[in-house]
Amino acid sequence: MSSASAFAIILAGGGGTRLWPASRRRNPKQLLRLGGDESLLAAAARRARELSDPDRILIVTAADQESAVRGAVPWLPRENVVVEPLPRNTAAAVGLGAVVAFRRAGAQAVLAVLPADPHIADEARFTAIVRAAIAEAARTITTVGIKPTHAETGFGYIRLGPAVAGAAGGAAVHQVGAFVEKPDRATAERYVASGDYLWNSGMFFLTAGRLLEEARRHLPALGQALDAMTAAPDFEAAVRERYPSVPSISIDNGIMEKASGLHVVPGDFGWNDVGSWAAMTAIRRADAAGNVVVGGAQLIEGKGNVVVAEPGAPYVGVLGVDDLVVVATADAVLVIPKHRAQDVRQLVEAAKKNGREDLL
Amino acid sequence: MSSASAFAIILAGGGGTRLWPASRRRNPKQLLRLGGDESLLAAAARRARELSDPDRILIVTAADQESAVRGAVPWLPRENVVVEPLPRNTAAAVGLGAVVAFRRAGAQAVLAVLPADPHIADEARFTAIVRAAIAEAARTITTVGIKPTHAETGFGYIRLGPAVAGAAGGAAVHQVGAFVEKPDRATAERYVASGDYLWNSGMFFLTAGRLLEEARRHLPALGQALDAMTAAPDFEAAVRERYPSVPSISIDNGIMEKASGLHVVPGDFGWNDVGSWAAMTAIRRADAAGNVVVGGAQLIEGKGNVVVAEPGAPYVGVLGVDDLVVVATADAVLVIPKHRAQDVRQLVEAAKKNGREDLL
Repeated sequence: MSSASAFAIILAGGGGTRLWPASRRRNPKQLLRLGGDESLLAAAARRARELSDPDRILIVTAADQESAVRGAVPWLPRENVVVEPLPRNTAAAVGLGAVVAFRRAGAQAVLAVLPADPHIADEARFTAIVRAAIAEAARTITTVGIKPTHAETGFGYIRLGPAVAGAAGGAAVHQVGAFVEKPDRATAERYVASGDYLWNSGMFFLTAGRLLEEARRHLPALGQALDAMTAAPDFEAAVRERYPSVPSISIDNGIMEKASGLHVVPGDFGWNDVGSWAAMTAIRRADAAGNVVVGGAQLIEGKGNVVVAEPGAPYVGVLGVDDLVVVATADAVLVIPKHRAQDVRQLVEAAKKNGREDLL
Repeated sequence: MSSASAFAIILAGGGGTRLWPASRRRNPKQLLRLGGDESLLAAAARRARELSDPDRILIVTAADQESAVRGAVPWLPRENVVVEPLPRNTAAAVGLGAVVAFRRAGAQAVLAVLPADPHIADEARFTAIVRAAIAEAARTITTVGIKPTHAETGFGYIRLGPAVAGAAGGAAVHQVGAFVEKPDRATAERYVASGDYLWNSGMFFLTAGRLLEEARRHLPALGQALDAMTAAPDFEAAVRERYPSVPSISIDNGIMEKASGLHVVPGDFGWNDVGSWAAMTAIRRADAAGNVVVGGAQLIEGKGNVVVAEPGAPYVGVLGVDDLVVVATADAVLVIPKHRAQDVRQLVEAAKKNGREDLL
């Protein structure tokens, strides 16, 4: 990697309850070893090393996750963990990373904005596609859209525009036709059948200067704050002072959907957002009956199950069930049908109502 | 209660795995608080106080359950916990109790042999029926048969013989037509439809002298050993010496099915043998959707479920499942369909194979 390699900005501040009881406020999804031996964050950081020198890999995270993040990526230079004083959604988090990159390498520094929590099955393909997107980022804001494998209603989509001639990196590159909101099922099916739509992956590639410019244009309060942090002699003091008052909005809604001239590289590298325990059957090797059994749990008979015993959990014995999710930790047990796996938040809310803050 | 009240012989030596993970070798079914605030054994002993003075209530148990039994029935005189040196099935256990009763009160002492582990819903009715059986025991061996509520294939049945005139206690009393083995489903359905069959409850009422006499006749090795224990100056030494070599056979197979002239009192008092976790929906008050939720577990939606969090268990959250059993203890979690609840033993065997002796 040359010193001019891109800055990888890994967004690792998310909370979320969809993988409860394994995921907690202080142990969110990206810190779980869902794919096997390493956490999703550790895998994301490892993939980033194929793109950037370690001193150009930044992880933006929340204050209460800082030490867990450092533990998950011990090889990362200490100053490359960028801590949000409090959560302000992804536009601000990317802005914070952009300011750090700008202060170190100027407006032309290329940023590769990478969410920490998807699982990537084909890492070589991922690297090739992302390199193409990074190469394109010098021209304009570029995103990677995921070729859909099913009519998912939980994701936003990107409509493909015309192909771009002379694209860098050898990959197919298109103009972005539009970002479209999460569709209903019929619309999602139409999108997938048409071949003209990709899933919005939340990956964006652009220069630090372009990010700050777009923030000034579309989110002026954020733009002003980022400019102040960029210029401040004491960066950390400026962050502490300005960050709390920046608008809390996603980078998709706040900037990318409003910016023009975006390009998109279609990607097909086994991307999975691990949106619920049901995803385990996709990201782990299932047995012949489609079961994924993790952590020494015992499953007898049954098909299509996800049975997880986290470290410290009781012994888990399951017999004769189908398409069920069973997850045990040292202090909580979840049982939910796989097709209802998104509804785990109802149980988290119930635990909260029951005064079990310790389980959140 | 007069000093001539019957001796209640409560059989509490059973092991069994059908209520795993709550039941363990050292914490078997009869010690579980399945019905609510008290263990099945404590309830059995409490019911026995309606029939006998505490000094005539004997609990026969296994050596490794002795201290748990004493803890469960703290009001019982110390010498009334009768400990088998090692398990030798129910003929020997009843024989041991009969010897103790004989040594204290002679051959005419009436024995009420009562398994520790059924759940009884209507205790007043139970007391009335058992009193009638005790009254009948001076005439002949008497049992209580349970009026069947469904075509159960897991129990032995008793075919009713002719009604007995002038029966004591005001209850209907019949001659025993025959003890019949566990039937197949079609046969069980025929039995129940006929009205001529009762479930074998394992409750027997007879004098100590008659028990010893029947043992001599049908199980001579047992009869000799019991006679030796009855006559021995040092009872405990005789038990230690003779008990290990007595035949291991149930009292039903070894004695009752071979004895003649038995009477039976039909009983209908909400008897439930709690043969698996599925029984919880019968012995506990279920909610409007037929769910039984115990110990602060959280169930959202679903019907017909049994969800149990034992003391010390993790928080249990279950959503959107039907007719499922979920049981958590501090060190193990069970998930099994209610109609498969008998198959929990397969999971116990698997735990054993996995070297988890600590879970047995």
